[in-house]
Amino acid sequence: MINHELSRSQNIQWQNIEVSSESRACIKNQKACCIWLTGLSGSGKSTIANLLEKKLHALGKHSYILDGDNVRHGLNQDLGFTESDRVENIRRVSEVASLMIDAGLIVIVSFISPFESDRALARQRIGGNRFYETYIQTSLDECEKRDPKGLYKKARSGDIKNFTGIDSPYEAPSNASLVINTMDESPEMAVDTIFGLLRTNGNIS
Amino acid sequence: MINHELSRSQNIQWQNIEVSSESRACIKNQKACCIWLTGLSGSGKSTIANLLEKKLHALGKHSYILDGDNVRHGLNQDLGFTESDRVENIRRVSEVASLMIDAGLIVIVSFISPFESDRALARQRIGGNRFYETYIQTSLDECEKRDPKGLYKKARSGDIKNFTGIDSPYEAPSNASLVINTMDESPEMAVDTIFGLLRTNGNIS
Repeated sequence: MINHELSRSQNIQWQNIEVSSESRACIKNQKACCIWLTGLSGSGKSTIANLLEKKLHALGKHSYILDGDNVRHGLNQDLGFTESDRVENIRRVSEVASLMIDAGLIVIVSFISPFESDRALARQRIGGNRFYETYIQTSLDECEKRDPKGLYKKARSGDIKNFTGIDSPYEAPSNASLVINTMDESPEMAVDTIFGLLRTNGNIS
Repeated sequence: MINHELSRSQNIQWQNIEVSSESRACIKNQKACCIWLTGLSGSGKSTIANLLEKKLHALGKHSYILDGDNVRHGLNQDLGFTESDRVENIRRVSEVASLMIDAGLIVIVSFISPFESDRALARQRIGGNRFYETYIQTSLDECEKRDPKGLYKKARSGDIKNFTGIDSPYEAPSNASLVINTMDESPEMAVDTIFGLLRTNGNIS
């Protein structure tokens, strides 16, 4: 707990809420969790997230995608790309993912999240037993060839600074729940792999 | 959009997400919205929020309570009670409520939210047609008599400063969707009234 001028967290009491995460998830026949997709820009995170949600939805499962770009337009619109803002970006997303898991949802987070330490914080906040770190492993060459948003071109020409993979590092997960290589696997195969994980862990039946 | 050092919001593109808010809500047979409970500490917001959620849950409806105290332990733990922090507190809660509405949920916000301007911002962010401002109208005398957390006693003795109703104002809503007087209505009657509103607006059938 950060101590803040005028803060009176000692006077903030935890409100007991009577309908539990489990009972909320139960009416949907699912066990809530977070599938955290990490990988370079252009690696295929959004494509996989969308296809995963469509397939879950078709089964009547209730999921939600927290997408890096979209969250930066709303909740995190006050944050830039400094070191401290980057940490705060991930902290807030982890808190929102936690609230949504508490609401019973299968939360799909699609964030480049290039730093191991940030992802470790997310894991800690969300809880290791419901956090599936999923590395969308696509080579920089391939991502740069795809360049769906034209961002690599801008980064190479110097129009964007601190771009992950170009002049800012991407730290590959050392201990991911899943590694998906999109040069070998189609998005459909990737989603099948994630479904296998969710079934094995009882998140969906 | 706030311009921030190192921000490159101009390079953040909106990701199209294919499963819509409507289709998410549809599998639950509900129309997502926000019931924003405002009122003094001790006015009965949490009691009503809990009973409302229990009754929605019993019908298989999917809701979630965002409670002022609980959110201050997590997402907003870095915020105190200064003017700017107070605005940021409501801004973030409004953004999270928006995301949860997008996820198809009936979101119950239980926040003192004493200032009309803050609630107006929340209404604007969430969208007037899915924002039901609900004023839990309980007299200060009655709240102070109940004093469920012993906070009025601390505020009267000066142990807590800027306490709403004592040395910080509460601005009653001028244009609430509902006004619930807990001195005349039991929590059960209050929840029935809210159910009436949700049915009239087609949020639940």
